[in-house]
Amino acid sequence: MKRKIRMGMVGGGPGAFIGNAHRCAARLDGLIELVCGAFSSHPDKCRAAGKELFLPEERCYASYDEMFEKEAKLPEGERMDFVSITTPNHTHFKIAMKALECGFHVVCEKPMTTTVEEAEALAAEVKRTGLLFCLTHNYTAYPMVRVAKRMARGGELGEIRRIMVEYPQGWLADAVTPDNIQGSWRTNPATSGISCCMGDIGSHAENLAEFITGLKITELCANIKTFVPGRALDDDGDVLLRFDNGAIGALSASQVAVGEENALKIRIYGTKAALEWRQENPETLIVKYNDRPAQLMRRNWAGVGAEWSRLPAGHPEGFFEAFGNLYRDMALAIDARLTGGTHETEYPTVEDGLRGVRFIHAVVGSQGAWVKL
Amino acid sequence: MKRKIRMGMVGGGPGAFIGNAHRCAARLDGLIELVCGAFSSHPDKCRAAGKELFLPEERCYASYDEMFEKEAKLPEGERMDFVSITTPNHTHFKIAMKALECGFHVVCEKPMTTTVEEAEALAAEVKRTGLLFCLTHNYTAYPMVRVAKRMARGGELGEIRRIMVEYPQGWLADAVTPDNIQGSWRTNPATSGISCCMGDIGSHAENLAEFITGLKITELCANIKTFVPGRALDDDGDVLLRFDNGAIGALSASQVAVGEENALKIRIYGTKAALEWRQENPETLIVKYNDRPAQLMRRNWAGVGAEWSRLPAGHPEGFFEAFGNLYRDMALAIDARLTGGTHETEYPTVEDGLRGVRFIHAVVGSQGAWVKL
Amino acid sequence: MKRKIRMGMVGGGPGAFIGNAHRCAARLDGLIELVCGAFSSHPDKCRAAGKELFLPEERCYASYDEMFEKEAKLPEGERMDFVSITTPNHTHFKIAMKALECGFHVVCEKPMTTTVEEAEALAAEVKRTGLLFCLTHNYTAYPMVRVAKRMARGGELGEIRRIMVEYPQGWLADAVTPDNIQGSWRTNPATSGISCCMGDIGSHAENLAEFITGLKITELCANIKTFVPGRALDDDGDVLLRFDNGAIGALSASQVAVGEENALKIRIYGTKAALEWRQENPETLIVKYNDRPAQLMRRNWAGVGAEWSRLPAGHPEGFFEAFGNLYRDMALAIDARLTGGTHETEYPTVEDGLRGVRFIHAVVGSQGAWVKL
Amino acid sequence: MKRKIRMGMVGGGPGAFIGNAHRCAARLDGLIELVCGAFSSHPDKCRAAGKELFLPEERCYASYDEMFEKEAKLPEGERMDFVSITTPNHTHFKIAMKALECGFHVVCEKPMTTTVEEAEALAAEVKRTGLLFCLTHNYTAYPMVRVAKRMARGGELGEIRRIMVEYPQGWLADAVTPDNIQGSWRTNPATSGISCCMGDIGSHAENLAEFITGLKITELCANIKTFVPGRALDDDGDVLLRFDNGAIGALSASQVAVGEENALKIRIYGTKAALEWRQENPETLIVKYNDRPAQLMRRNWAGVGAEWSRLPAGHPEGFFEAFGNLYRDMALAIDARLTGGTHETEYPTVEDGLRGVRFIHAVVGSQGAWVKL
Repeated sequence: MKRKIRMGMVGGGPGAFIGNAHRCAARLDGLIELVCGAFSSHPDKCRAAGKELFLPEERCYASYDEMFEKEAKLPEGERMDFVSITTPNHTHFKIAMKALECGFHVVCEKPMTTTVEEAEALAAEVKRTGLLFCLTHNYTAYPMVRVAKRMARGGELGEIRRIMVEYPQGWLADAVTPDNIQGSWRTNPATSGISCCMGDIGSHAENLAEFITGLKITELCANIKTFVPGRALDDDGDVLLRFDNGAIGALSASQVAVGEENALKIRIYGTKAALEWRQENPETLIVKYNDRPAQLMRRNWAGVGAEWSRLPAGHPEGFFEAFGNLYRDMALAIDARLTGGTHETEYPTVEDGLRGVRFIHAVVGSQGAWVKL
Repeated sequence: MKRKIRMGMVGGGPGAFIGNAHRCAARLDGLIELVCGAFSSHPDKCRAAGKELFLPEERCYASYDEMFEKEAKLPEGERMDFVSITTPNHTHFKIAMKALECGFHVVCEKPMTTTVEEAEALAAEVKRTGLLFCLTHNYTAYPMVRVAKRMARGGELGEIRRIMVEYPQGWLADAVTPDNIQGSWRTNPATSGISCCMGDIGSHAENLAEFITGLKITELCANIKTFVPGRALDDDGDVLLRFDNGAIGALSASQVAVGEENALKIRIYGTKAALEWRQENPETLIVKYNDRPAQLMRRNWAGVGAEWSRLPAGHPEGFFEAFGNLYRDMALAIDARLTGGTHETEYPTVEDGLRGVRFIHAVVGSQGAWVKL
Repeated sequence: MKRKIRMGMVGGGPGAFIGNAHRCAARLDGLIELVCGAFSSHPDKCRAAGKELFLPEERCYASYDEMFEKEAKLPEGERMDFVSITTPNHTHFKIAMKALECGFHVVCEKPMTTTVEEAEALAAEVKRTGLLFCLTHNYTAYPMVRVAKRMARGGELGEIRRIMVEYPQGWLADAVTPDNIQGSWRTNPATSGISCCMGDIGSHAENLAEFITGLKITELCANIKTFVPGRALDDDGDVLLRFDNGAIGALSASQVAVGEENALKIRIYGTKAALEWRQENPETLIVKYNDRPAQLMRRNWAGVGAEWSRLPAGHPEGFFEAFGNLYRDMALAIDARLTGGTHETEYPTVEDGLRGVRFIHAVVGSQGAWVKL
Repeated sequence: MKRKIRMGMVGGGPGAFIGNAHRCAARLDGLIELVCGAFSSHPDKCRAAGKELFLPEERCYASYDEMFEKEAKLPEGERMDFVSITTPNHTHFKIAMKALECGFHVVCEKPMTTTVEEAEALAAEVKRTGLLFCLTHNYTAYPMVRVAKRMARGGELGEIRRIMVEYPQGWLADAVTPDNIQGSWRTNPATSGISCCMGDIGSHAENLAEFITGLKITELCANIKTFVPGRALDDDGDVLLRFDNGAIGALSASQVAVGEENALKIRIYGTKAALEWRQENPETLIVKYNDRPAQLMRRNWAGVGAEWSRLPAGHPEGFFEAFGNLYRDMALAIDARLTGGTHETEYPTVEDGLRGVRFIHAVVGSQGAWVKL
């Protein structure tokens, strides 16, 4: 690479779990340097965050507008190359649009927007500008998920018949107290959009199923529910799925599944073989057969997934490393633009983001009936 | 006990997996003696089976009618006490009705009948005769399932919100050849009834969910499918569930889930705790909490489930032992009748069988819409 | 088979875990009938036990001497065919010798005797009489252990280099109270012999390692210990092992390993592949490679171990079923003698028993130094 | 923190797995900046490595001597604060001594030195200079290992009786080809010292056992072996252990355990409870009891190990994150020195390094007999 790639950040102030996760992931390979941020809409908090991150005060901006405008005026080689958007859902759209307008590549949290219209507009803008856009469906970046994708799309499972994907969490089983920043904005329609559970994690499950298989959900029938009294958005639900090749399956997501941490899991059954992957044990991909013993494929063992590995097998890579694969991908893609090289990105795109927003709206709109997606 | 309890059997001839399982289970505790059988509708096969079982030729009957009639004329202390019905689904009803008519207690395979009307008639007949009737939803007899039931019904989970139950198998992923006796009758509407997958295993899943929780499914919405070309009945499907307390969940069953053996699994999430149990690892019940570490409850460790155990913890009990709990229960119940004692049975009853048949018909009738159960 | 095989039993009175396990195992396949017993040295207890087992009073004998002598005088077809010896260790020798003298085949618990001299004398007597003798190293009878044996001896692992076998239990972590019958006799030198932990379970571990690999331990160096104050025999220890092909390894056994149930586990590493098997999860055999993913071999899946299976894959078989394989083997062997047929037994023999007794004495005699075995 | 802490590196040139791991770990939290390096004894390779790391050419030094001397002359705030030594074993001593002499804090790979004398001299020098010294027994930095330490040392297990620690790997099962850089220097006495397997990984196992429990090995008896023909150092072995409180146990390590990745595992049994931890599944600590169900403690669930966590439970942290805990610790300790604050380090020290070297020499010197440690 020609030089380190420069990152700006919107969001990720004090107490923001995902903002810190983005930064750790971006740092991991030493290819990216955080150079500026609009970490909070409170200027004091923004500056405090920037100070902790060893940023100069003048690059801790009071707003993303200011950041994009001022950074755009800095010379190449000094100004940021791309922005990471790690704010609550309702702000993604306008931040991303502004970033694109100012010529910055974008890494954006999911769900991409809170309405389908915004998602479509953003997709159009990405296309129009030709800028890079990575949606952080970070689970797709686990090496064994990419191995699963290659196997499924390469025909190793035969024709796919059944997909079971689930994402149970327990952390919102009780009413959220105001000091729970993460929980508060996610359960608030003003910041989260029309869905909590299905938007926050159901969309990851949807994305994972389509990412691995290359199949598209064509119809779904959802039964979602709000269990915690006083909560305005769904916190639990199940969705029947029909795919474009005739496969069927079910998607379950819950944030009131007491005792569950972050238990995203997918199983895919084809005519020849089946796959099983669990996010909490991400280094293993189980491959099952009717006519021989199941195989435990492990990251970087016997060459499996070596191209997405930083460590030998048995030296656990986890959430940051997967997330870091997205950032590395973005850094290499930007470098290719800077140097006139080429780099084929593997990260989820604005199209995946649009599809996710459509999925969320279909699920919420289903009300127990079948709807097209 | 006063004496060994005497068992007759209908079905269970050569190649019948489940018939042999019944016999092994019945033998396990030494409380039951097989004294007669109508093992096959072919008299030769019946006699051959009886010979292998060391039965006298005169008690290997050419038909169940003959068996019930002749046995009924033998003196108490010689005639059979109860019958085990292990034939294909379509015959359960008439065999069970005849057995009851002749005064014999009944152990019957599931699904209990192939129509709701038959199931209702049989339930009425059991009630009228006052005879004992055990439906072999054998998975309910695993010690850790009974522990789960006690916990769930005793309030240890709090209010139940979510139930996820699944039963994937892979053995019918391809078209069945004629020599596959088990597969042939199950995929044939004439012998299996209106459903293959949902009748054979989906009904186990339904039963397990209701058995453990005491909740009732009030509404369901099913998406079932036949994947194998030329097959007349469903071999795969998912069902959205609503329970009488407001809980929701999903049931998935498949016989085309390549690589899956007999992977019945249930998870139950309450407001306070959650349970997870897997049939393939039946000695462990996982209890999960939001506010403390999960617990691995193990059969007969620290007293858990000791009342249903034959062996110390760590000495695996399995399918036969669970099944044997049903037979022991039946033997003790019959002995109580013989001796004027009392015995409280824990086995599934004709009412469970009726509910299962209603479930199967609701699922098949759903056609993607919500139906009451 | 010509007829059911007739079993007598010594030991196995009230509260005897292993006696009941023997009976359940013997019953499982319906090939064996318990016809008599000397269940206790207290005649009342013996009769009570016999009554519970539905035996006629005249065949509940006051002593094994009486049993062997009287049974020997009964006509063939009525008298017992073999005896199961399930008493404490110190009695095995004289009971077995007497049984052989009276012409009965023997199933005997391990350790076979409490001295090497007795073991040698018993081995000689078995050879002299030509009678059948099965030592219940029951863990060798798990289907996946037999699959492991076939693989290891068939060269699928390459040359074996390393064997790790362990058997931790926690049940004797505290001093034994008198009502703990199992614990009391095992910790008493008068009934248990020179070792508790190494005799009771260490010898299972030794046997398993040699059974699967066909290798012989040639030298060992042991560090054993008694942790519970006042206990007269070892309750914990580790043993360095050297095998006749140059392989090395370690054996650990403990009865004070708090929290462990019955965690016998073995790992065998060869130049080409490795095996791992755990008794508490006996249906799975893991096969590991350097150049491809590990395989999960499962009982009766894709044909693996089908010849030792009673149930399809995913229908758990456990401790009784493994134990039952020994009894079935004995029954078929006796039948072959009755009918002039042939049957190749797979059960552990008097030679395995002799080897086990030598192992126990070597371990106890080692005192931290290397000793030949 | 006042500013980012500046790191220099010795070793870690092209193809060096552990050098890159150090850098990733050091970057993770954004507290440390790599400012210079002597990455290779080949100046070209060194410069190439530095360029890939975006370092200025003038700070890519031809030798560590040059680096320490030149960096020492740079002003505070520009010169490096500490050095990471990631070279083969035989060079650690002189590099570390020189670094200390020049006033730099040290992060050093294990084993610390190749002789006990060097280790003692280095320990004395660290003491004399008062500089910070972190030995990268990185496995001690997994959150759940630290939880285990707190539990074990806090008495939650009762008195510890048994420790079983094992570290099987399979990657050196065959002769090493010259292009295998990692394997080549580790199997070469000139670079590795007197031991391969026990030095490289056995010492991790020893350290882990003492780190968690606070107990000291007082005596050991080792059986080590070289399996691969032509190899000059041990590649496999088992060690009997005696601890200063009377506990006993065994340590096994192998680099020829085909199919094993990096399977460090420890079990610790006390009078009240037991712990089990596996490096390949590092987020879980199993706690076992005799009188209640086992618990699955999970990182950052219900508060467990939150102080060492960067991510919520269920978002896997792995090898880099544990390693990063050592670097964060070092960064905070240096910052405390810069700012006059205090910081209590948790990283392994030069004393642990000395102990490790003594362990390696005791094992190699044992030759099957008991030796004091």
